[in-house]
Amino acid sequence: MKVAFLGLTGSNSHLAAQKYLSDNATPLGLTSFSKIFSEVSLGFADVGILPLENSLTGSIYEIYDLLIKNDLDIIGELFLKINHNLLVKSDFLNKKLSIQDITICYSHPEVFKQCRLFLDKHSNIKTVLSSDTSEAARIVSKQKNITTSVIGNNNLTSIYNLKIIKRNIGDHNNNYTRFIAIGKKGTKSGNKVSIIFSVEHKPGSLIATLAPYAKFGLNLTKIESRPVIGKPWEYTFFVDFELGEDKKILTNVLEEMKKHVKFLKVVGLYEKGKTYES
Amino acid sequence: MKVAFLGLTGSNSHLAAQKYLSDNATPLGLTSFSKIFSEVSLGFADVGILPLENSLTGSIYEIYDLLIKNDLDIIGELFLKINHNLLVKSDFLNKKLSIQDITICYSHPEVFKQCRLFLDKHSNIKTVLSSDTSEAARIVSKQKNITTSVIGNNNLTSIYNLKIIKRNIGDHNNNYTRFIAIGKKGTKSGNKVSIIFSVEHKPGSLIATLAPYAKFGLNLTKIESRPVIGKPWEYTFFVDFELGEDKKILTNVLEEMKKHVKFLKVVGLYEKGKTYES
Repeated sequence: MKVAFLGLTGSNSHLAAQKYLSDNATPLGLTSFSKIFSEVSLGFADVGILPLENSLTGSIYEIYDLLIKNDLDIIGELFLKINHNLLVKSDFLNKKLSIQDITICYSHPEVFKQCRLFLDKHSNIKTVLSSDTSEAARIVSKQKNITTSVIGNNNLTSIYNLKIIKRNIGDHNNNYTRFIAIGKKGTKSGNKVSIIFSVEHKPGSLIATLAPYAKFGLNLTKIESRPVIGKPWEYTFFVDFELGEDKKILTNVLEEMKKHVKFLKVVGLYEKGKTYES
Repeated sequence: MKVAFLGLTGSNSHLAAQKYLSDNATPLGLTSFSKIFSEVSLGFADVGILPLENSLTGSIYEIYDLLIKNDLDIIGELFLKINHNLLVKSDFLNKKLSIQDITICYSHPEVFKQCRLFLDKHSNIKTVLSSDTSEAARIVSKQKNITTSVIGNNNLTSIYNLKIIKRNIGDHNNNYTRFIAIGKKGTKSGNKVSIIFSVEHKPGSLIATLAPYAKFGLNLTKIESRPVIGKPWEYTFFVDFELGEDKKILTNVLEEMKKHVKFLKVVGLYEKGKTYES
């Protein structure tokens, strides 16, 4: 089984892929989200792992747009706690240097934003942008300058021969990313549902479409919208909800929604994801 | 009256400011959205004009986050049709050159994305990124090389002494941006309402909060959500809806919503915006 994800070995997406598939898959690191969709669509990968939402920065809208464009199913999900650790080369610790001696730090721009308080306190550290944390770790591992550092997950230490000099330097501790697994054929069983729909462009249609959730007492965990290209102020909606014991409710709620929608597709029926430490 | 917006004279935001205030205001071009919020908060500008949503690319989430952080009101809105025109220097036309002779084009990265088909057809044109279309026009106006061009609105021609060589080169014709006007004190009258709220993190709370819209037959025109920092998978919701003749319904719907929300704020009550050509 081949699993596609963004970045190199050790990236957060790679880590999510390992947690999801328990190390049993051949990793395929790619350079863009759209490549992950096309590799899975073409059958060159069996599963794609994608970050859909972060608890601090919000939805990753590019993934929602790719879910509309491509005919792939969400086959699962998982939550990964993101820990931002400051990593240095082994020689840095061997020479008994400290954080005050670090001159440069490589990481993803989003990571720097999430470690603003730490970086403001340590003005000796100049930040340099990388495409992802695994790429940053690879660059630092090859550098001769031992005062370079990287912000990334724990996992990068063994892969790129780095050491943690300070753990959890993020501004907020409650930092989680929700990853989804996509594939050609959904599992078609589980307690969580993701649907995509669009409604008639007339007063009250969205509310009418959501009313069955109240009627059947379903827990809507997320609602997201993206514009319909060429139809100003019309939207494609994404809704996630949880199913209880009575799975027949799914058929009933979809039947009622169909009275008000222009288009509706169950994009995934899967087991609610577990949370893992990074 | 001072009006703050993003970019230089002639930017789409400046144009929106002119349409909204009918040329009666002193323009104050700024370099970031957060600066617009702080200038209005501090009283250095009376009104701020901000793009909230584009019909092709979706919401501008940074503005939603700034609306949560700052205690300012939405005092109005307008819709601007975005026309992407290819502009050149006067000398380019005087020398009877054609599109095939253009070597470089400056514009905002989002503009290039929206003119992909035209640019793919004209591989002689190398794209160079600018912070906004007015900055691109300023650069081209100062260039000696007459084969440089810019993609921008009609308005830029008179300000930067440029000529239109081709109109409407965007991939999609239905390209509109919704702008909002923000100020310290809302108008507190009108037929459109914007509210911000968060709900209890328990099953069914979002649906219960939205139920009054169905009951009172209100037209919900937009729903958007942003993460609550530090509380994973809790959201702050933004809802826009239209009010009919009976303005008392607003009090009633807010009373019912308040039974289910943790927090609710009317961020704007204003007249539904008009649409203008750019």
